Amino acid sequence: MGSEVTLLDFWTSPFGMRARIALAEKGVDYEYKDENLEKKSDLLLKMNPIHKKIPVLIHNGKPICESLIILQYIDEVWNDKCPLIPEDPYQRAIARFWADYVDKKIYDSGRKIWSTKGEEQETAKKEFLEVLKVLEGELGDKTYFGGEKMGYVDVAFIPFYSWFYMYETCGKFSIEAECPKLIAWAKRCLEKESVSKTLPDSHKVYDAMKVIYGF
Amino acid sequence: MGSEVTLLDFWTSPFGMRARIALAEKGVDYEYKDENLEKKSDLLLKMNPIHKKIPVLIHNGKPICESLIILQYIDEVWNDKCPLIPEDPYQRAIARFWADYVDKKIYDSGRKIWSTKGEEQETAKKEFLEVLKVLEGELGDKTYFGGEKMGYVDVAFIPFYSWFYMYETCGKFSIEAECPKLIAWAKRCLEKESVSKTLPDSHKVYDAMKVIYGF
Repeated sequence: MGSEVTLLDFWTSPFGMRARIALAEKGVDYEYKDENLEKKSDLLLKMNPIHKKIPVLIHNGKPICESLIILQYIDEVWNDKCPLIPEDPYQRAIARFWADYVDKKIYDSGRKIWSTKGEEQETAKKEFLEVLKVLEGELGDKTYFGGEKMGYVDVAFIPFYSWFYMYETCGKFSIEAECPKLIAWAKRCLEKESVSKTLPDSHKVYDAMKVIYGF
Repeated sequence: MGSEVTLLDFWTSPFGMRARIALAEKGVDYEYKDENLEKKSDLLLKMNPIHKKIPVLIHNGKPICESLIILQYIDEVWNDKCPLIPEDPYQRAIARFWADYVDKKIYDSGRKIWSTKGEEQETAKKEFLEVLKVLEGELGDKTYFGGEKMGYVDVAFIPFYSWFYMYETCGKFSIEAECPKLIAWAKRCLEKESVSKTLPDSHKVYDAMKVIYGF
Protein backbone atom coordinates (compact mmCIF):
# COMPACT_ATOMS: atom_id res chain seq x y z
CA MET A 1 0.00 0.00 0.00
CA GLY A 2 1.49 3.30 -1.06
CA SER A 3 1.51 5.36 2.07
CA GLU A 4 3.09 8.75 2.51
CA VAL A 5 4.04 9.64 6.05
CA THR A 6 5.57 12.87 7.33
CA LEU A 7 6.28 13.86 10.90
CA LEU A 8 6.45 17.54 11.86
CA ASP A 9 8.49 17.54 15.02
CA PHE A 10 11.26 19.15 17.07
CA TRP A 11 14.17 16.97 18.10
CA THR A 12 14.11 17.69 21.86
CA SER A 13 10.34 17.13 22.16
CA PRO A 14 9.36 14.10 24.26
CA PHE A 15 5.95 14.29 22.60
CA GLY A 16 7.52 14.03 19.17
CA MET A 17 9.76 11.19 20.36
CA ARG A 18 6.64 9.19 21.19
CA ALA A 19 5.61 9.23 17.54
CA ARG A 20 9.18 8.48 16.40
CA ILE A 21 9.45 5.42 18.66
CA ALA A 22 6.06 4.09 17.58
CA LEU A 23 6.86 4.54 13.89
CA ALA A 24 10.19 2.77 14.41
CA GLU A 25 8.53 -0.10 16.30
CA LYS A 26 6.08 -0.52 13.43
CA GLY A 27 8.78 -0.21 10.79
CA VAL A 28 7.11 2.73 9.04
CA ASP A 29 9.25 4.83 6.70
CA TYR A 30 8.57 8.52 6.99
CA GLU A 31 9.95 11.92 6.26
CA TYR A 32 11.08 13.78 9.39
CA LYS A 33 10.79 17.56 9.40
CA ASP A 34 12.38 19.45 12.24
CA GLU A 35 10.38 22.63 12.85
CA ASN A 36 11.75 25.97 13.88
CA LEU A 37 9.45 26.63 16.81
CA GLU A 38 10.34 30.33 16.81
CA LYS A 39 9.12 30.57 13.25
CA LYS A 40 6.66 27.79 12.60
CA SER A 41 6.28 26.59 9.02
CA ASP A 42 3.18 27.30 6.96
CA LEU A 43 2.75 23.55 6.77
CA LEU A 44 2.58 23.20 10.56
CA LEU A 45 0.13 26.09 10.90
CA LYS A 46 -2.02 24.59 8.15
CA MET A 47 -1.90 21.06 9.54
CA ASN A 48 -2.53 21.99 13.18
CA PRO A 49 -4.42 25.30 13.07
CA ILE A 50 -6.02 24.70 16.47
CA HIS A 51 -3.01 24.08 18.71
CA LYS A 52 -0.20 25.09 16.29
CA LYS A 53 2.03 22.52 18.01
CA ILE A 54 4.32 19.69 17.05
CA PRO A 55 4.18 16.75 16.68
CA VAL A 56 1.87 16.39 13.72
CA LEU A 57 1.74 13.14 11.80
CA ILE A 58 0.68 13.64 8.19
CA HIS A 59 -0.56 10.44 6.59
CA ASN A 60 -1.46 10.64 2.91
CA GLY A 61 -2.03 14.38 3.28
CA LYS A 62 -4.22 14.16 6.39
CA PRO A 63 -2.97 15.51 9.73
CA ILE A 64 -3.19 13.76 13.09
CA CYS A 65 -2.36 15.95 16.11
CA GLU A 66 -1.68 15.39 19.82
CA SER A 67 0.95 12.80 20.61
CA LEU A 68 -1.19 10.23 22.47
CA ILE A 69 -3.78 10.39 19.69
CA ILE A 70 -0.96 9.92 17.17
CA LEU A 71 0.21 6.82 19.07
CA GLN A 72 -3.25 5.31 19.02
CA TYR A 73 -3.59 6.12 15.30
CA ILE A 74 -0.25 4.50 14.49
CA ASP A 75 -1.23 1.43 16.50
CA GLU A 76 -4.57 1.14 14.70
CA VAL A 77 -3.28 1.73 11.16
CA TRP A 78 -0.12 -0.37 11.31
CA ASN A 79 -1.73 -3.14 13.31
CA ASP A 80 0.25 -6.05 11.84
CA LYS A 81 3.13 -5.89 14.32
CA CYS A 82 4.22 -4.68 17.76
CA PRO A 83 0.80 -3.86 19.23
CA LEU A 84 1.07 -0.99 21.68
CA ILE A 85 -2.41 -1.06 23.20
CA PRO A 86 -3.78 -4.32 24.65
CA GLU A 87 -6.86 -6.05 23.22
CA ASP A 88 -8.83 -6.39 26.45
CA PRO A 89 -11.05 -3.34 27.17
CA TYR A 90 -10.06 -3.21 30.84
CA GLN A 91 -6.35 -3.47 30.07
CA ARG A 92 -6.84 -0.77 27.43
CA ALA A 93 -8.45 1.50 30.02
CA ILE A 94 -5.56 0.90 32.42
CA ALA A 95 -2.98 1.68 29.72
CA ARG A 96 -4.88 4.84 28.78
CA PHE A 97 -5.09 5.85 32.42
CA TRP A 98 -1.32 5.69 32.91
CA ALA A 99 -0.45 7.32 29.59
CA ASP A 100 -2.84 10.11 30.56
CA TYR A 101 -1.17 10.33 33.99
CA VAL A 102 2.25 10.72 32.36
CA ASP A 103 0.76 13.31 30.02
CA LYS A 104 -0.83 15.38 32.76
CA LYS A 105 1.96 15.20 35.31
CA ILE A 106 5.51 14.74 34.03
CA TYR A 107 6.01 17.73 31.73
CA ASP A 108 4.30 20.27 33.98
CA SER A 109 5.86 19.17 37.24
CA GLY A 110 9.26 18.74 35.56
CA ARG A 111 9.15 22.17 33.93
CA LYS A 112 8.95 23.80 37.34
CA ILE A 113 12.34 22.31 38.21
CA TRP A 114 14.18 24.17 35.46
CA SER A 115 12.05 27.30 35.52
CA THR A 116 12.21 28.09 39.26
CA LYS A 117 14.80 28.56 41.99
CA GLY A 118 15.15 28.26 45.77
CA GLU A 119 12.20 27.11 47.80
CA GLU A 120 9.89 26.96 44.80
CA GLN A 121 12.36 24.62 43.13
CA GLU A 122 12.56 22.42 46.22
CA THR A 123 8.78 22.06 46.16
CA ALA A 124 8.91 21.31 42.44
CA LYS A 125 11.51 18.56 42.97
CA LYS A 126 9.42 16.98 45.70
CA GLU A 127 6.31 17.07 43.50
CA PHE A 128 8.19 15.65 40.52
CA LEU A 129 9.63 12.79 42.57
CA GLU A 130 6.20 12.01 43.98
CA VAL A 131 4.88 11.67 40.42
CA LEU A 132 7.80 9.41 39.50
CA LYS A 133 7.26 7.28 42.60
CA VAL A 134 3.61 6.75 41.69
CA LEU A 135 4.81 5.54 38.29
CA GLU A 136 7.47 3.36 39.90
CA GLY A 137 4.75 1.84 42.07
CA GLU A 138 2.65 1.07 39.00
CA LEU A 139 5.67 -0.49 37.26
CA GLY A 140 6.39 -2.68 40.28
CA ASP A 141 8.35 -5.76 39.27
CA LYS A 142 7.11 -5.81 35.70
CA THR A 143 9.61 -5.67 32.84
CA TYR A 144 7.67 -2.89 31.14
CA PHE A 145 4.54 -0.95 32.01
CA GLY A 146 3.01 -3.01 29.20
CA GLY A 147 4.04 -6.27 30.95
CA GLU A 148 6.41 -8.55 29.04
CA LYS A 149 6.42 -6.22 26.04
CA MET A 150 6.98 -2.52 25.62
CA GLY A 151 3.57 -0.89 25.17
CA TYR A 152 1.59 2.33 25.07
CA VAL A 153 2.58 3.62 28.52
CA ASP A 154 6.26 2.80 27.94
CA VAL A 155 6.28 4.69 24.65
CA ALA A 156 4.46 7.63 26.24
CA PHE A 157 6.87 7.84 29.17
CA ILE A 158 10.36 6.79 27.99
CA PRO A 159 11.06 9.98 25.96
CA PHE A 160 11.24 11.92 29.21
CA TYR A 161 14.25 9.84 30.21
CA SER A 162 16.28 12.02 27.82
CA TRP A 163 15.27 14.99 29.99
CA PHE A 164 16.26 13.38 33.31
CA TYR A 165 19.82 14.73 33.10
CA MET A 166 18.41 18.23 32.64
CA TYR A 167 16.06 17.86 35.61
CA GLU A 168 18.88 16.45 37.75
CA THR A 169 21.40 19.10 36.75
CA CYS A 170 19.00 22.01 37.20
CA GLY A 171 17.64 20.63 40.47
CA LYS A 172 20.90 19.13 41.80
CA PHE A 173 19.38 15.78 42.73
CA SER A 174 19.52 12.17 41.67
CA ILE A 175 16.46 10.47 40.27
CA GLU A 176 18.14 7.05 40.44
CA ALA A 177 18.68 7.41 44.18
CA GLU A 178 14.94 7.81 44.64
CA CYS A 179 13.55 5.67 41.84
CA PRO A 180 16.05 2.90 41.00
CA LYS A 181 13.43 0.65 39.40
CA LEU A 182 12.41 3.37 36.98
CA ILE A 183 16.00 3.87 35.87
CA ALA A 184 16.42 0.11 35.41
CA TRP A 185 13.21 0.14 33.31
CA ALA A 186 14.54 3.05 31.22
CA LYS A 187 17.74 1.14 30.55
CA ARG A 188 15.73 -1.89 29.45
CA CYS A 189 13.76 0.29 27.04
CA LEU A 190 17.03 1.68 25.66
CA GLU A 191 18.04 -1.83 24.64
CA LYS A 192 15.42 -1.48 21.90
CA GLU A 193 16.70 0.17 18.76
CA SER A 194 13.42 2.07 18.34
CA VAL A 195 14.20 3.84 21.62
CA SER A 196 17.99 4.13 21.49
CA LYS A 197 17.92 5.59 17.98
CA THR A 198 15.16 8.04 18.91
CA LEU A 199 16.25 9.44 22.25
CA PRO A 200 18.74 12.27 21.80
CA ASP A 201 21.84 12.59 23.94
CA SER A 202 20.84 13.96 27.37
CA HIS A 203 23.69 16.47 27.41
CA LYS A 204 22.66 17.85 24.01
CA VAL A 205 19.09 18.20 25.26
CA TYR A 206 20.37 20.10 28.29
CA ASP A 207 22.52 22.41 26.18
CA ALA A 208 19.71 23.14 23.72
CA MET A 209 17.10 23.76 26.41
CA LYS A 210 19.55 26.03 28.24
CA VAL A 211 19.77 28.19 25.13
CA ILE A 212 16.03 28.10 24.42
CA TYR A 213 14.84 28.78 27.97
CA GLY A 214 17.86 30.58 29.34
CA PHE A 215 18.11 28.72 32.64
CA MET B 1 -23.84 -11.98 31.11
CA GLY B 2 -24.07 -11.05 34.78
CA SER B 3 -22.45 -7.68 34.97
CA GLU B 4 -22.35 -5.42 37.99
CA VAL B 5 -21.94 -1.73 37.24
CA THR B 6 -21.65 1.14 39.71
CA LEU B 7 -20.97 4.79 38.99
CA LEU B 8 -19.40 7.01 41.64
CA ASP B 9 -20.38 10.48 40.61
CA PHE B 10 -21.66 13.90 41.64
CA TRP B 11 -24.85 15.16 40.04
CA THR B 12 -23.55 18.55 38.79
CA SER B 13 -20.41 17.05 37.23
CA PRO B 14 -20.26 17.31 33.43
CA PHE B 15 -17.59 14.60 33.55
CA GLY B 16 -19.93 12.27 35.40
CA MET B 17 -22.77 13.14 33.00
CA ARG B 18 -20.63 11.83 30.14
CA ALA B 19 -20.62 8.38 31.70
CA ARG B 20 -24.34 8.59 32.53
CA ILE B 21 -25.27 9.48 28.93
CA ALA B 22 -23.10 6.72 27.48
CA LEU B 23 -24.55 4.11 29.87
CA ALA B 24 -28.06 5.27 28.96
CA GLU B 25 -27.29 5.11 25.22
CA LYS B 26 -26.03 1.56 25.66
CA GLY B 27 -28.93 0.57 27.88
CA VAL B 28 -26.71 -0.50 30.77
CA ASP B 29 -28.31 -0.83 34.21
CA TYR B 30 -26.14 0.50 36.98
CA GLU B 31 -26.14 1.70 40.54
CA TYR B 32 -25.61 5.44 40.85
CA LYS B 33 -23.81 6.72 43.94
CA ASP B 34 -23.72 10.44 44.53
CA GLU B 35 -20.51 11.28 46.40
CA ASN B 36 -20.12 13.95 49.04
CA LEU B 37 -17.08 15.70 47.59
CA GLU B 38 -16.38 17.41 50.91
CA LYS B 39 -16.09 14.01 52.54
CA LYS B 40 -15.22 11.46 49.91
CA SER B 41 -16.27 7.87 50.56
CA ASP B 42 -13.76 5.16 51.38
CA LEU B 43 -14.96 3.42 48.23
CA LEU B 44 -14.01 6.42 46.04
CA LEU B 45 -10.59 6.75 47.68
CA LYS B 46 -10.00 3.03 47.22
CA MET B 47 -11.19 2.95 43.62
CA ASN B 48 -9.35 6.08 42.48
CA PRO B 49 -6.38 6.44 44.83
CA ILE B 50 -4.37 8.41 42.25
CA HIS B 51 -6.72 11.28 41.41
CA LYS B 52 -9.37 10.76 44.13
CA LYS B 53 -11.95 12.16 41.71
CA ILE B 54 -15.36 11.27 40.36
CA PRO B 55 -16.52 9.83 38.06
CA VAL B 56 -15.36 6.28 38.61
CA LEU B 57 -17.06 3.42 36.80
CA ILE B 58 -16.82 0.15 38.72
CA HIS B 59 -17.43 -2.85 36.52
CA ASN B 60 -17.48 -6.23 38.26
CA GLY B 61 -15.36 -4.80 41.05
CA LYS B 62 -12.76 -3.16 38.82
CA PRO B 63 -12.48 0.64 38.62
CA ILE B 64 -12.15 2.72 35.48
CA CYS B 65 -11.23 6.38 36.02
CA GLU B 66 -11.14 9.56 33.92
CA SER B 67 -14.30 10.35 32.02
CA LEU B 68 -13.01 10.09 28.44
CA ILE B 69 -11.37 6.78 29.28
CA ILE B 70 -14.65 5.64 30.82
CA LEU B 71 -16.48 6.57 27.59
CA GLN B 72 -14.05 4.56 25.49
CA TYR B 73 -14.36 1.62 27.89
CA ILE B 74 -18.15 1.70 27.77
CA ASP B 75 -18.04 1.87 23.98
CA GLU B 76 -15.68 -1.11 23.77
CA VAL B 77 -17.44 -3.34 26.32
CA TRP B 78 -21.04 -2.67 25.27
CA ASN B 79 -20.26 -2.70 21.57
CA ASP B 80 -23.55 -4.18 20.35
CA LYS B 81 -25.40 -0.86 20.00
CA CYS B 82 -25.00 2.90 19.60
CA PRO B 83 -21.30 3.02 18.73
CA LEU B 84 -19.76 6.25 19.99
CA ILE B 85 -16.35 6.07 18.33
CA PRO B 86 -16.12 5.54 14.56
CA GLU B 87 -14.47 2.45 13.03
CA ASP B 88 -12.06 4.24 10.70
CA PRO B 89 -8.70 5.05 12.33
CA TYR B 90 -8.59 8.58 10.91
CA GLN B 91 -12.15 9.35 11.99
CA ARG B 92 -11.29 7.92 15.41
CA ALA B 93 -8.30 10.26 15.64
CA ILE B 94 -10.49 13.24 14.69
CA ALA B 95 -13.10 12.31 17.30
CA ARG B 96 -10.38 11.89 19.94
CA PHE B 97 -8.89 15.25 18.96
CA TRP B 98 -12.14 17.13 19.52
CA ALA B 99 -13.06 15.29 22.71
CA ASP B 100 -9.58 16.15 23.98
CA TYR B 101 -10.11 19.78 22.91
CA VAL B 102 -13.36 19.96 24.89
CA ASP B 103 -11.59 18.33 27.81
CA LYS B 104 -8.66 20.73 27.82
CA LYS B 105 -10.56 23.95 27.12
CA ILE B 106 -14.18 24.14 28.25
CA TYR B 107 -13.97 23.52 31.99
CA ASP B 108 -10.87 25.62 32.59
CA SER B 109 -11.87 28.59 30.47
CA GLY B 110 -15.44 28.40 31.78
CA ARG B 111 -14.36 28.26 35.41
CA LYS B 112 -12.66 31.63 35.06
CA ILE B 113 -16.03 33.20 34.24
CA TRP B 114 -17.58 32.34 37.60
CA SER B 115 -14.40 32.67 39.66
CA THR B 116 -13.28 36.14 38.53
CA LYS B 117 -14.69 39.66 38.25
CA GLY B 118 -14.17 42.85 36.24
CA GLU B 119 -11.55 42.91 33.54
CA GLU B 120 -10.33 39.40 34.30
CA GLN B 121 -13.87 38.16 33.78
CA GLU B 122 -14.18 40.02 30.49
CA THR B 123 -11.02 38.30 29.26
CA ALA B 124 -12.38 34.97 30.49
CA LYS B 125 -15.64 35.47 28.59
CA LYS B 126 -13.77 36.32 25.40
CA GLU B 127 -11.56 33.25 25.77
CA PHE B 128 -14.53 31.00 26.50
CA LEU B 129 -16.46 32.26 23.47
CA GLU B 130 -13.40 31.74 21.27
CA VAL B 131 -13.27 28.11 22.39
CA LEU B 132 -17.00 27.70 21.69
CA LYS B 133 -16.61 29.31 18.26
CA VAL B 134 -13.86 26.88 17.36
CA LEU B 135 -16.24 24.07 18.29
CA GLU B 136 -19.07 25.70 16.35
CA GLY B 137 -16.77 25.84 13.34
CA GLU B 138 -16.01 22.15 13.67
CA LEU B 139 -19.72 21.34 13.98
CA GLY B 140 -20.48 23.36 10.84
CA ASP B 141 -23.71 22.18 9.25
CA LYS B 142 -23.51 18.68 10.64
CA THR B 143 -26.39 17.36 12.75
CA TYR B 144 -23.98 16.14 15.43
CA PHE B 145 -20.21 16.31 15.86
CA GLY B 146 -20.40 12.59 15.13
CA GLY B 147 -22.19 13.27 11.81
CA GLU B 148 -25.68 11.82 11.41
CA LYS B 149 -25.51 10.15 14.82
CA MET B 150 -24.59 11.38 18.27
CA GLY B 151 -21.04 10.21 19.00
CA TYR B 152 -18.01 10.52 21.26
CA VAL B 153 -17.51 14.28 20.89
CA ASP B 154 -21.20 14.99 21.41
CA VAL B 155 -21.27 12.94 24.60
CA ALA B 156 -18.08 14.60 25.83
CA PHE B 157 -19.40 18.11 25.19
CA ILE B 158 -23.18 18.16 25.76
CA PRO B 159 -23.01 17.90 29.58
CA PHE B 160 -21.56 21.41 29.67
CA TYR B 161 -24.80 22.72 28.19
CA SER B 162 -26.28 22.34 31.69
CA TRP B 163 -23.63 24.82 32.86
CA PHE B 164 -24.32 27.41 30.14
CA TYR B 165 -26.96 29.20 32.27
CA MET B 166 -24.41 29.52 35.07
CA TYR B 167 -21.76 30.91 32.71
CA GLU B 168 -24.28 33.34 31.20
CA THR B 169 -25.66 34.50 34.53
CA CYS B 170 -22.26 34.96 36.16
CA GLY B 171 -20.80 36.63 33.06
CA LYS B 172 -23.94 38.52 31.97
CA PHE B 173 -23.74 37.47 28.33
CA SER B 174 -25.61 35.30 25.86
CA ILE B 175 -23.97 32.25 24.36
CA GLU B 176 -26.79 31.84 21.84
CA ALA B 177 -26.20 35.34 20.45
CA GLU B 178 -22.63 34.32 19.62
CA CYS B 179 -22.99 30.63 18.85
CA PRO B 180 -26.52 29.94 17.57
CA LYS B 181 -25.53 26.72 15.81
CA LEU B 182 -24.14 25.25 19.02
CA ILE B 183 -27.35 25.98 20.86
CA ALA B 184 -29.37 24.39 18.05
CA TRP B 185 -27.07 21.34 18.30
CA ALA B 186 -27.56 21.19 22.09
CA LYS B 187 -31.33 21.23 21.63
CA ARG B 188 -31.06 18.40 19.11
CA CYS B 189 -29.05 16.37 21.64
CA LEU B 190 -31.70 17.06 24.27
CA GLU B 191 -34.27 15.33 22.08
CA LYS B 192 -32.52 12.11 23.07
CA GLU B 193 -33.75 10.60 26.29
CA SER B 194 -30.20 9.61 27.27
CA VAL B 195 -29.34 13.32 27.35
CA SER B 196 -32.59 14.86 28.60
CA LYS B 197 -32.81 12.43 31.52
CA THR B 198 -29.15 12.98 32.42
CA LEU B 199 -28.70 16.73 32.24
CA PRO B 200 -29.85 18.39 35.45
CA ASP B 201 -31.91 21.57 35.46
CA SER B 202 -29.62 24.53 34.67
CA HIS B 203 -31.07 26.65 37.46
CA LYS B 204 -30.46 23.90 40.02
CA VAL B 205 -26.87 23.61 38.82
CA TYR B 206 -26.45 27.36 39.24
CA ASP B 207 -27.94 27.31 42.74
CA ALA B 208 -25.79 24.39 43.85
CA MET B 209 -22.57 25.79 42.40
CA LYS B 210 -23.33 29.15 44.02
CA VAL B 211 -23.43 27.43 47.40
CA ILE B 212 -20.35 25.27 46.73
CA TYR B 213 -18.13 28.00 45.27
CA GLY B 214 -19.71 31.04 46.88
CA PHE B 215 -19.88 33.23 43.76
